[in-house]
Amino acid sequence: MQSSFLHAAAAMLVLTGALAHAATPTGADEWPMPARDHASTRYSPLKDVDTTDVADLQVSFTFSTGVLRGHEAAPIVADGTMFIVTPYPNYLYALDLGQPGAPVKWVFKPNPKPASQGVACCDLVNRGVVYADGRLFFNTLDAQTIAVDAKTGKEIWRRQMGDLNRGETMTMAPLVVKDKVLVGNSGGEFGVRGWLAALDVRTGRIRWRAWSTGPDSDVLIGARFRPFYAGDRGQDLGVHSWPGDAWQRGGGTVWGWISYDPELNLVYYGTANPGPWNADQRPGDNKWTAGIFARDADSGEARWFYQFNPHDLYDYDGVNENVLMDMNVDGRTRKVLAHPDRNGYLYVIDRQSGEVLSAKPFVHVNTISSVDLKTGRPNYVASRKPEVNKVVRDICPHAAGGKDWQPSAFSPQTRLLYIPHQNMCQDEEAVSANYIAGTPYVGANVRMYAGPGGYRGVFQAWDPATQRTVWEIHEKFPVWSGALVTAGNVVFYGTMDGWFKAVDARTGEVLWKHKVGSGIVGQPITYRGPDGRQYVAVMAGVGGWAGAIVAGDLDPRDASAATGFAQPMADLPSQSNKGGTVYVFAVP
Amino acid sequence: MQSSFLHAAAAMLVLTGALAHAATPTGADEWPMPARDHASTRYSPLKDVDTTDVADLQVSFTFSTGVLRGHEAAPIVADGTMFIVTPYPNYLYALDLGQPGAPVKWVFKPNPKPASQGVACCDLVNRGVVYADGRLFFNTLDAQTIAVDAKTGKEIWRRQMGDLNRGETMTMAPLVVKDKVLVGNSGGEFGVRGWLAALDVRTGRIRWRAWSTGPDSDVLIGARFRPFYAGDRGQDLGVHSWPGDAWQRGGGTVWGWISYDPELNLVYYGTANPGPWNADQRPGDNKWTAGIFARDADSGEARWFYQFNPHDLYDYDGVNENVLMDMNVDGRTRKVLAHPDRNGYLYVIDRQSGEVLSAKPFVHVNTISSVDLKTGRPNYVASRKPEVNKVVRDICPHAAGGKDWQPSAFSPQTRLLYIPHQNMCQDEEAVSANYIAGTPYVGANVRMYAGPGGYRGVFQAWDPATQRTVWEIHEKFPVWSGALVTAGNVVFYGTMDGWFKAVDARTGEVLWKHKVGSGIVGQPITYRGPDGRQYVAVMAGVGGWAGAIVAGDLDPRDASAATGFAQPMADLPSQSNKGGTVYVFAVP
Repeated sequence: MQSSFLHAAAAMLVLTGALAHAATPTGADEWPMPARDHASTRYSPLKDVDTTDVADLQVSFTFSTGVLRGHEAAPIVADGTMFIVTPYPNYLYALDLGQPGAPVKWVFKPNPKPASQGVACCDLVNRGVVYADGRLFFNTLDAQTIAVDAKTGKEIWRRQMGDLNRGETMTMAPLVVKDKVLVGNSGGEFGVRGWLAALDVRTGRIRWRAWSTGPDSDVLIGARFRPFYAGDRGQDLGVHSWPGDAWQRGGGTVWGWISYDPELNLVYYGTANPGPWNADQRPGDNKWTAGIFARDADSGEARWFYQFNPHDLYDYDGVNENVLMDMNVDGRTRKVLAHPDRNGYLYVIDRQSGEVLSAKPFVHVNTISSVDLKTGRPNYVASRKPEVNKVVRDICPHAAGGKDWQPSAFSPQTRLLYIPHQNMCQDEEAVSANYIAGTPYVGANVRMYAGPGGYRGVFQAWDPATQRTVWEIHEKFPVWSGALVTAGNVVFYGTMDGWFKAVDARTGEVLWKHKVGSGIVGQPITYRGPDGRQYVAVMAGVGGWAGAIVAGDLDPRDASAATGFAQPMADLPSQSNKGGTVYVFAVP
Repeated sequence: MQSSFLHAAAAMLVLTGALAHAATPTGADEWPMPARDHASTRYSPLKDVDTTDVADLQVSFTFSTGVLRGHEAAPIVADGTMFIVTPYPNYLYALDLGQPGAPVKWVFKPNPKPASQGVACCDLVNRGVVYADGRLFFNTLDAQTIAVDAKTGKEIWRRQMGDLNRGETMTMAPLVVKDKVLVGNSGGEFGVRGWLAALDVRTGRIRWRAWSTGPDSDVLIGARFRPFYAGDRGQDLGVHSWPGDAWQRGGGTVWGWISYDPELNLVYYGTANPGPWNADQRPGDNKWTAGIFARDADSGEARWFYQFNPHDLYDYDGVNENVLMDMNVDGRTRKVLAHPDRNGYLYVIDRQSGEVLSAKPFVHVNTISSVDLKTGRPNYVASRKPEVNKVVRDICPHAAGGKDWQPSAFSPQTRLLYIPHQNMCQDEEAVSANYIAGTPYVGANVRMYAGPGGYRGVFQAWDPATQRTVWEIHEKFPVWSGALVTAGNVVFYGTMDGWFKAVDARTGEVLWKHKVGSGIVGQPITYRGPDGRQYVAVMAGVGGWAGAIVAGDLDPRDASAATGFAQPMADLPSQSNKGGTVYVFAVP
């Protein structure tokens, strides 16, 4: 653990003490969706387990999923039941928390097409199931969205949302907003064209689908679209900011996190990188990739957009979490969202207008020297621009970004954002990519390695108001797990070598750690059990992009394995085996 | 839990309080071989964890093996290191107990031939590795014996011991006796001819190999062979007690447990069922199958043999454990062994002479009415004899026996044998079996079901001196795990639905239980860690013959799946997932 003030800056922004919308549809004791609330805080008001007794945590029970791939999902808890979805083959389990040892109530096996295993870019992960009003919603690797009755485990409906033959898969956790379930696609590395869709929770009928590229009609851009920055204004930019018809295979998939503000009735989500990685093949800003959309939750109409990475050069997807909070800015309370981007900058954005209030690096960044708050555009460092048939060295952060999908947690008590992330750089050579439907469409050779300091992972407390690191803990491997913070001022995360850790949310002191059976890339949660005790749960099961070397038995001598992420993890297989297991802890 | 005196009998035998040969080559704190000692007691002198504090046991750490098949092995502990061998692909791990979280020191991957998966009769199990003098010895499914340096994980030697093309595999745990490692083969359901071999610990050179069928020269029967019963005397009975050349495919494999008495310098081990199951195809006693050999540990010469099941009718292998103890019989201390056989009888045998001192049913048996202590022969119940093209009903115990391989534990303190076993019966129809090398050679259709009472598993305390049950616990599923008993008067076992239980060795009271991630079919052990604390460890990972329905994804509608053992376990998949994990417990 190290305290760091590397990114200290004048404290222009002061955070208010209250969360705007920590929606808890089924009570403070439960955890009904991966982020727990629509604001994506991953904050629990439970505080039976606090800094004074967290060191007494013990394993209450465990449950093997029987699946060996990377377990990136959160277990969720609602109605006295824990629900978990596994990586492919996407088994959905209900565990009865009211019975000793939490036996299986039911299991639902969706039988996704085996061929989906061949077109997932980075392991066969799934990031979670969501519970709402007695129904469960989740996606399968072969691009289906499925609704299941939470009591019985019976299928209510299923809908094929994407085309496996084009490399289109689904890995993200849905979000339920009122009577719609929101889902998006994966497959940016296969030239898949991204979208977010809203399905009727009762029938699965598609109510709207908003594409991330193409004409305004496809993107659901209309009269109510008011982007803050001039660069995002104009007709059919989703076509014109691309060469020819490149937008049709241009990426911008929606495989990350969605937030929702019920007062503004807006949903927020990021779009992934443009395809292919080789940016010379797609001159232009490549709208609407690598940015964030605010959309009307009912109609899907775009209300604003902001592009973190116009003409993305580095696979810097914009899909990371958007954590909604209120913030006092120069004496005025503003509804903001905090977004730690793959490009290594932490953005605080006015979520009504799309105005960027601050953008500061939270990691070592040498690809973007600053973000121009007048234009909203990043200032790219010319010497780091990848070129065809030339190896550009020391690109930081690497393709997986300053952080990737692994979600932060925000505590209204400490007013800090807890960011799990990696510290990695790369050398890159752009190469020509040919599009063949259903095959990889990347166009880059990368060699990844640890960033300055030699450690590959960081768990960091970041103050979004003062824009600086309050403390950080260095880890040998990328911190590829989610974060959880509680009213007990304890923050939890896991490591890829299998340590589940509890840290003082204020100081970063490690208060407790427990070695689980496999590396952790899942999302920790907490809940109150039917017996009244507070439990903490996390799935172990190493994998995901960073852990694909283990989950996929990859050969680190192959520089292209896991798009370059196998080689720098060559020491992981000796320190973490495969194995999906839910670990549930409590103070005895 | 139920106390039972079903098999009460006059207490002719009084047990002495001391074990004969609880050899502990590397100290009382360690557990260097699956049974801990050469006497096969599975008794530990450790007593920090006793009946007063066992309820405080908590998970110390876990380790995922990354393998999903049935984990029947014991972890072993020697030299501050835990060694575990997995089911196929038979990974061998060394975990450093001196470091927090017990990280992997090294892993050895033997790369057994994938084809071995096709010829293992009942899941792809391995029953353990053994440590002796800095070397580790284990067998691979493709019938190799391998020696590995315990410090470095480097291979010392390997030897191909059997022929996969004939269905010959290896699943048993070796035993090291002085400068030899003893190993035997599996494959009785493929017509494999059984043997026990002794290999030089330093070079792997085969010092002797004793076959279970065939001419005396093959069986290592010579001048020193003195069987107690007349029926075992005569020349080349391993040929003449078979029709024609049937002995060449007659089974009698050696896949179970070996014990060793250093004073007598004798090794004891059982031989498996004769092949095929259809007994009409092999008139005669089918020597030397379904019995026990005592052999000179140096030369391998047979010293005596006793046949539990001459002309076995029911797949009643004789491979179960032989627990060595001294016993006061009618005022005279005798060196005996206790053997709970598949046929449901508990034998106490003078291990010098081979005389059966007592033989009583420890489970419900209706296939054998009694054992004639004068002739040593069982009295078969004629109405239960399987016949060709006729279904004989209510055969108890079923083919897996009153108990199978899952080893008992014996405490010199309580003088009780703790027997994990099943309570199952079957209907059977014999059919003609054709021998084709490398394919199943069984000749029986069986339908298995729970025995009287409806429970399928029992954990039982048996008094070998008085020949009666002291207490027993009924379990829903067969108790397919091993047993462990300690000087703290605690006995441990696991269930196929994932409960690891600690029981008062005197009363059978369940003092503690913990739900692990998968069903338990492994062998629990205890040891003192480098930090001075007593630990208890067991591998979870359901499978084996009884759990093949889960480990092998078998369809219970197929009556022949797992030779009939899938159908009666149709409710197991909903109550236990796959997943190999070592669980290590301690009192915090």
